[in-house]
Amino acid sequence: MPDYKAPLRDIKFVMSELLDSEQHYASLEGAEDATPDMVDAIIGEGAKFCEQVLSPLNQVGDQEGCTWSEDGVKTPTGFKEAYQQYVEGGWPSMAADVEYGGQGLPNSVNLVMSEMVGTANWAWGMYPGLSHGAINTLESHGTEEQKQTYLTKLISGEWTGTMCLTEAHCGSDLGTLRSKAEPNSDGSYSITGTKIFISAGDHDMAENIVHIVLARLPDAPKGTKGISLFIVPKYLPGEDGSAGEKNAVSCGSIEHKMGIHGNATCVMNFDGAKGWLIGPENKGLNCMFTFMNVARLGTAIQGLSHAELGFQGSLDYARERLAMRALSGPKNPEGSADPIIVHPDVRRMLLTQKSIAEGARALIYMAAQQSDILHQGKTEEERQAADDMMGFLTPIAKAFLTEMGHESANLGVQVFGGHGYISEWGMEQNVRDARIGMIYEGTTGIQALDLLGRKVLMTQGESLKGFTKLVHVFCKENADNEQMKEFIEPLQALNKEWGEITMTIGKNAMKNRDEVGAASFDYLMYSGYAVFAYLWARMAKVALDKMAEGTEEEAFYNAKVETARFYFKRLLPRSRGHVAMLEAGADSLMSLPEDQFAF
Amino acid sequence: MPDYKAPLRDIKFVMSELLDSEQHYASLEGAEDATPDMVDAIIGEGAKFCEQVLSPLNQVGDQEGCTWSEDGVKTPTGFKEAYQQYVEGGWPSMAADVEYGGQGLPNSVNLVMSEMVGTANWAWGMYPGLSHGAINTLESHGTEEQKQTYLTKLISGEWTGTMCLTEAHCGSDLGTLRSKAEPNSDGSYSITGTKIFISAGDHDMAENIVHIVLARLPDAPKGTKGISLFIVPKYLPGEDGSAGEKNAVSCGSIEHKMGIHGNATCVMNFDGAKGWLIGPENKGLNCMFTFMNVARLGTAIQGLSHAELGFQGSLDYARERLAMRALSGPKNPEGSADPIIVHPDVRRMLLTQKSIAEGARALIYMAAQQSDILHQGKTEEERQAADDMMGFLTPIAKAFLTEMGHESANLGVQVFGGHGYISEWGMEQNVRDARIGMIYEGTTGIQALDLLGRKVLMTQGESLKGFTKLVHVFCKENADNEQMKEFIEPLQALNKEWGEITMTIGKNAMKNRDEVGAASFDYLMYSGYAVFAYLWARMAKVALDKMAEGTEEEAFYNAKVETARFYFKRLLPRSRGHVAMLEAGADSLMSLPEDQFAF
Repeated sequence: MPDYKAPLRDIKFVMSELLDSEQHYASLEGAEDATPDMVDAIIGEGAKFCEQVLSPLNQVGDQEGCTWSEDGVKTPTGFKEAYQQYVEGGWPSMAADVEYGGQGLPNSVNLVMSEMVGTANWAWGMYPGLSHGAINTLESHGTEEQKQTYLTKLISGEWTGTMCLTEAHCGSDLGTLRSKAEPNSDGSYSITGTKIFISAGDHDMAENIVHIVLARLPDAPKGTKGISLFIVPKYLPGEDGSAGEKNAVSCGSIEHKMGIHGNATCVMNFDGAKGWLIGPENKGLNCMFTFMNVARLGTAIQGLSHAELGFQGSLDYARERLAMRALSGPKNPEGSADPIIVHPDVRRMLLTQKSIAEGARALIYMAAQQSDILHQGKTEEERQAADDMMGFLTPIAKAFLTEMGHESANLGVQVFGGHGYISEWGMEQNVRDARIGMIYEGTTGIQALDLLGRKVLMTQGESLKGFTKLVHVFCKENADNEQMKEFIEPLQALNKEWGEITMTIGKNAMKNRDEVGAASFDYLMYSGYAVFAYLWARMAKVALDKMAEGTEEEAFYNAKVETARFYFKRLLPRSRGHVAMLEAGADSLMSLPEDQFAF
Repeated sequence: MPDYKAPLRDIKFVMSELLDSEQHYASLEGAEDATPDMVDAIIGEGAKFCEQVLSPLNQVGDQEGCTWSEDGVKTPTGFKEAYQQYVEGGWPSMAADVEYGGQGLPNSVNLVMSEMVGTANWAWGMYPGLSHGAINTLESHGTEEQKQTYLTKLISGEWTGTMCLTEAHCGSDLGTLRSKAEPNSDGSYSITGTKIFISAGDHDMAENIVHIVLARLPDAPKGTKGISLFIVPKYLPGEDGSAGEKNAVSCGSIEHKMGIHGNATCVMNFDGAKGWLIGPENKGLNCMFTFMNVARLGTAIQGLSHAELGFQGSLDYARERLAMRALSGPKNPEGSADPIIVHPDVRRMLLTQKSIAEGARALIYMAAQQSDILHQGKTEEERQAADDMMGFLTPIAKAFLTEMGHESANLGVQVFGGHGYISEWGMEQNVRDARIGMIYEGTTGIQALDLLGRKVLMTQGESLKGFTKLVHVFCKENADNEQMKEFIEPLQALNKEWGEITMTIGKNAMKNRDEVGAASFDYLMYSGYAVFAYLWARMAKVALDKMAEGTEEEAFYNAKVETARFYFKRLLPRSRGHVAMLEAGADSLMSLPEDQFAF
């Protein structure tokens, strides 16, 4: 497993040089503490913790996995101690509400920490990561008493949280879920049902676990309109607020799975467990949707994390491993062969990883700023605009980045050749860990429908226009910039085409609703490449400007420009295939009768 | 793990309807036994063995893996017994030389069996599969005594073989290998060195293992011109020909790896082991190249196998799993939801898998017929033409099919959603097993250089012309066929473009040799899509003709035509991206200085 090194220079580039975080934080309500020095210091401290404490446990977690017994789930060696340090460092409370013990920093600072935690050790990071769902639910919909009882403990990190949605027969389609909540005379509810795929559903890292459970009240309407949310703690809080009596909730088993072995994926049995309604009756899904974008952005980070880790591992290897001579003549004549980084095809793989990782960082941080504004923007107008932008960017970030992260992780294996397939090197673990990203928190297919159906077409394209306008303005600003021409011209063409294909799909969908599902995946991927093109063009602009001004970091900025060039010449052309595919229409998918798929 | 069902109808379609195997076998020297009835009967028997014996052991092999001890490697439960049945069934000898106990059937019949074995249980199939390398080496370069001693035992399956090439510091670049062979006074050699990644290097399935080892004679020239081949048996053959005294070769350890757990990947230590030279001194690599294409075709099958297994698994699931309603209205109104096969995006995934699996079968069988002609063609001219065609098709089949098979296996996971990530269902194992295909027996990058550099450019494009001429003739024959227009028009354009981009790369490469490496991957993928386009157009033609003639299997042929349409509209457009990328040239990969890849 490669030793993770937090890419602090690039983090700084994206935060402050590309996205002007200083100005951004100054524009927020109550983000006075987020001064550049403070943010730098926090990220620097976080980096040390991730590099020194979490990264060494990444392979341990994979190899040991979690262990189930009737007494509960045991996490891999070192996980519990690392969590203790994490809590003592105050990391869980960073972006939480000051009123309940949080430090009130903007969410975007927290997401940088999530990136570093996730890249160092994704499976470990899921334990505190899952708490965010419970924290968001309580912040948005909890009563004051619920907040005092649960939110404070989640924010301090003493307790962790889960989201209990999926049942064996339903994941994407929550409308058919069956778990029941029967009212008790004391105002609480008895929750009964079995939930599966509950990440961090049980473990030994914190003294209590707060489950947010989707269940149906008696006589609730069928489908998605009859689902309510309940708080179901593993241990019922005692009078003094500490974890008391064991509740009737238990982990029945843990899954054997492809990767993220260090994180327990639990079957959770609720056997008349005591729970409390949170939010209005039958509005559970609506309540969850209020922070769905933020939760999905958390998963989008997984794409960035595995892309970055894959890149770091394969770059080190490509510089050290000797094999064959450069086609253009020996580059390491005194050695037995040249390092493989001299070979164009190895560079193709490394540059693909690099442009994915750095592009992903730009996209995540851009969306993270929108989530800051959504929560701390000074005007309703700003907040609404940020919500719209988040709505548009989130499915792209979640699906496109996890797909690209998986590709990058696979390239990491490929650069290592046969050694990539061997567990010891950690590159194959990175692929196995990455693979879940395209599935949970809404599969790529679900995100694609969300983007095209719910976000773009349901707003008559307004959601897309919010973004293409940014692109248009940027292109216009740089129309006369000779150095930027190689980026602006293709970007402008793409931006125009993006609107046109959206119109076409919209028209076709009026005749046949299957046209939406038939175009959605390729539309999402196309949009991902387009968003990356905009971000890479902007990054090139920043770098070219710095070089024009004169800088001591010429090499760093040159690398940005070269990577942008690589992106435009070597990855963006994939959009040509996606355009053709999404124009192929529904017939090419629907005309084969179901019974003719195999004989 | 899905229960494997041999796709006998499709196998028959490709063999006899697409590739006219009856006429093909009749045209070969000494293939009189390969009558249609005989071939059908063999494949039918083989299918039963694969479905009933090997398929149930696929998941067992993954979960148990192999166990190392000082006494040797123990294979998973049932593997040894299955091998016994395989030997008793006469399967190892099917395509081998009659003179040494073989049945003399054409290689293409054997490859159909290899497909079924590999799809049922790839890890198991590698044990007999690895023998082919040793068999080919002995058939081509062994002395009569060596053949009598080793070849007969390998053909009967009593013994198995390995190829010992890789050392820790060298895989693709064999020129730097260090294992030594010192001559003994009795004409034998003492072999010393450590080989890694030796598949089936040790096991308990056969009474002896024949290693073909690459090593250097004293004072051998440096590099690839100083490598010789040696036969090194695990047990030295006694006077009566049976396995006798233990040789000084042992398995030092086995690798923990991503997949193919049922197959032992061994570190093999040769400590002055007794061996015998095979073929001329210092010509080891040349000797191996004589059957490299056939060996690589064996690995190409892995792409087909994982594509097929992924497709079978996800099709069953997509028909049974209920989630959400079709966008165009309920299709299963009495159920709680519709089966997911109604959703366009699920169909996109299934059709991608289907068109990959069936296209791969056509490509493998086409190449297999060439390998038949190479060995049993009646004229030197025929044999030479087949050798050229094999040379062109092999890197495409090996690299393109393993890449596509991996994609298809991953789609299998995706169709299953969260369940795909859980080991129990077997879909994630299919991905892990598939992943090695793009690496061993020459990585995708190595195949791409072989195709573009060695095969196409070194023959001044003649190698490509051999194929594009076939395409041209086919297009001309169907120029007036209205029904075929949708396939012929894009195929013709592609065929022209293929020649043009080859010319362009060739010109650029004269100025800068890095242009070859910079274009090679995209050229290979482009070529793969082009070859598939030709094969899918031909398959559509066969099906349309059958329907025009009138048939009781209308549904089967209709599915072929629809799948061909899907291929042209939904997969072939990827070639647009690859053209643009390979035209991007070497600069986009080489201009970033090595020390600027990260900061």
